[in-house]
Amino acid sequence: MSEAVRPETPANVDTVRAIEWRDGELRLLDQRLLPSEERYLRLRDFEAVADAIRDLVVRGAPAIGITAAYGAVLAARRRVEADGDGWRRNWEADLKTLGKARPTAINLAWALERMRRAADAAGDDPVTALEAEARHIHESDVAANHRMGELGAALFEEPAAVVTHCNTGSLATGGYGTALGVIRSAWARGMVTEVFAGETRPWLQGARLSAWELQRDGIPSRVIADAAAASLMRTGRVGWVITGADRVAANGDVANKIGTYALAVAARHHGIPFMVVAPVSTIDPEVPDGSAIPIEERDPSEVLGYGGRPTAPSGARAWNPVFDVTPAELVSVLVTEAGIVENPDEAGIRQLLETAKRGVE
Amino acid sequence: MSEAVRPETPANVDTVRAIEWRDGELRLLDQRLLPSEERYLRLRDFEAVADAIRDLVVRGAPAIGITAAYGAVLAARRRVEADGDGWRRNWEADLKTLGKARPTAINLAWALERMRRAADAAGDDPVTALEAEARHIHESDVAANHRMGELGAALFEEPAAVVTHCNTGSLATGGYGTALGVIRSAWARGMVTEVFAGETRPWLQGARLSAWELQRDGIPSRVIADAAAASLMRTGRVGWVITGADRVAANGDVANKIGTYALAVAARHHGIPFMVVAPVSTIDPEVPDGSAIPIEERDPSEVLGYGGRPTAPSGARAWNPVFDVTPAELVSVLVTEAGIVENPDEAGIRQLLETAKRGVE
Repeated sequence: MSEAVRPETPANVDTVRAIEWRDGELRLLDQRLLPSEERYLRLRDFEAVADAIRDLVVRGAPAIGITAAYGAVLAARRRVEADGDGWRRNWEADLKTLGKARPTAINLAWALERMRRAADAAGDDPVTALEAEARHIHESDVAANHRMGELGAALFEEPAAVVTHCNTGSLATGGYGTALGVIRSAWARGMVTEVFAGETRPWLQGARLSAWELQRDGIPSRVIADAAAASLMRTGRVGWVITGADRVAANGDVANKIGTYALAVAARHHGIPFMVVAPVSTIDPEVPDGSAIPIEERDPSEVLGYGGRPTAPSGARAWNPVFDVTPAELVSVLVTEAGIVENPDEAGIRQLLETAKRGVE
Repeated sequence: MSEAVRPETPANVDTVRAIEWRDGELRLLDQRLLPSEERYLRLRDFEAVADAIRDLVVRGAPAIGITAAYGAVLAARRRVEADGDGWRRNWEADLKTLGKARPTAINLAWALERMRRAADAAGDDPVTALEAEARHIHESDVAANHRMGELGAALFEEPAAVVTHCNTGSLATGGYGTALGVIRSAWARGMVTEVFAGETRPWLQGARLSAWELQRDGIPSRVIADAAAASLMRTGRVGWVITGADRVAANGDVANKIGTYALAVAARHHGIPFMVVAPVSTIDPEVPDGSAIPIEERDPSEVLGYGGRPTAPSGARAWNPVFDVTPAELVSVLVTEAGIVENPDEAGIRQLLETAKRGVE
């Protein structure tokens, strides 16, 4: 593996914030328009937040959770205004609406549960308490990402090229990123020679979003067709395959963007370690294994064209699951802010969750 | 695996011809415009033929060979008109131009070598002799495809779903197809429940061309993102992965459309047999193994955009090899018109070539 070029500016600072809470409104960078246009949407009610999650204005498991938390604040504000002390009566239904916006990422349910508990503990001013909780979720996510970045980067033994998938950076989280956070931290240590970003059909998060983030931060990268990754691994240049996760089951099975499983299979075939980077909030102990994780299927038109323009013939059909499940045995290491789990399994995940609960690392 | 629906019309007839030789001119269905437009280009000189090969008006290893053979006829006609008996002096350079149009498919060099030998044997009317040879190459390809269809379909033991990649049908050959020919024949026997066509980024031959051919012939199919194939295999529904080839090395290594290797790795991981279907003309005994096959890299913009529209940020880079090499040990069976080779290796390929030379099956 060739020598890494030392970064001119440290890359463990990122420069984008896709989610902003300001003056009592939620501002979301519209990720459907990137990279050709940088436009923020301003949302003032929770229905618009649910729509934004469903329509991919915001995407990425941690970002979906943070967005939903702010959505819960907007819902509470309206209910308090309308129903006074009885505000929680209708707020529960609002949370359900938010919770149903997308099915696979567990961070959504996790964030809403956090908001419920904050409501339980709130005093006379629930809106202020909920706003503080949402901000706390947001800021904790950024801190967790920096922590994961350090833990993951420490696993690099020599400079190497990295293959990643989808977008797991500042845009997919509160900031810095999960898999892309590890890549940022490893690059800052001189441990990354180049990033190969799978374009991530059908929605092209890799080509549109990861290439954009990596370019902004000066990290050398090339986009590849998703199907080229195995061939690239065969060249011997790839030191790590690193992805995020949308949900991790109790046994360590990982649901993530469609194509992750193919990368994991190819990585194993070539003896390349496969790292999954995800905050503890992504782990769902209620789900025993990957087969119980709901996998979202989106409209076939996403595969039959791009950006609204069809490429396949009219009347063609498609299968469009947008996530897949990688069994734990193909995961070399799971990196969380509470610590890493090598060769994750049920016992390893249980121990991690206990550590996280104690707040000890 | 579920029961196959019996076809209402036998699917071992195909309905498209992408290459036509009529009234002394070559007509090529412009595959860059499919499926939205069916337009034939009319070519009268070999430079236009070389351009058409390079610019993907025509693609698919056997189709490239046939097209080049007709290009050699057009070149000869002009040279005879200009140089009379000395026509071969400049014709050699014309063949070189045609031969350089694309590097990976060996069928191109093979067809031109056939034309050279026909010129050696030609009498007073070399143009007529060369025209007859080109027609013979074309017609033999269609016959070979039907033969391969039968040989490959006979390997199906029960109805199953099939995963295929790129386009290997009537459009990629003289007619009927290689991998898609086997699928047509197997469907006619009630052995195919459904075809899953990888969209085949970056050029989308699967979504644009295979979906179109399969739809025309009434074979049920769905397009998938290339990266979804491994996940599909994990469901247990897939009985065969079947692709074509652009060049087969003496040891059985197979160069084919980028993404083929990823499918082969995933097929092996899931215990699914991987069938490669290619005429004997695709075998290059001069190349000892896959590492010696030249792999074409095309413009990065093919990966950085979709349908001609850029999707990645301006200034983004890409790696765009359009073929990859699958080592022979991942190939379960190679199907040719001269017979099949299970678990191909050097001895198996040598024996096949001897059989082919004897014209015995």
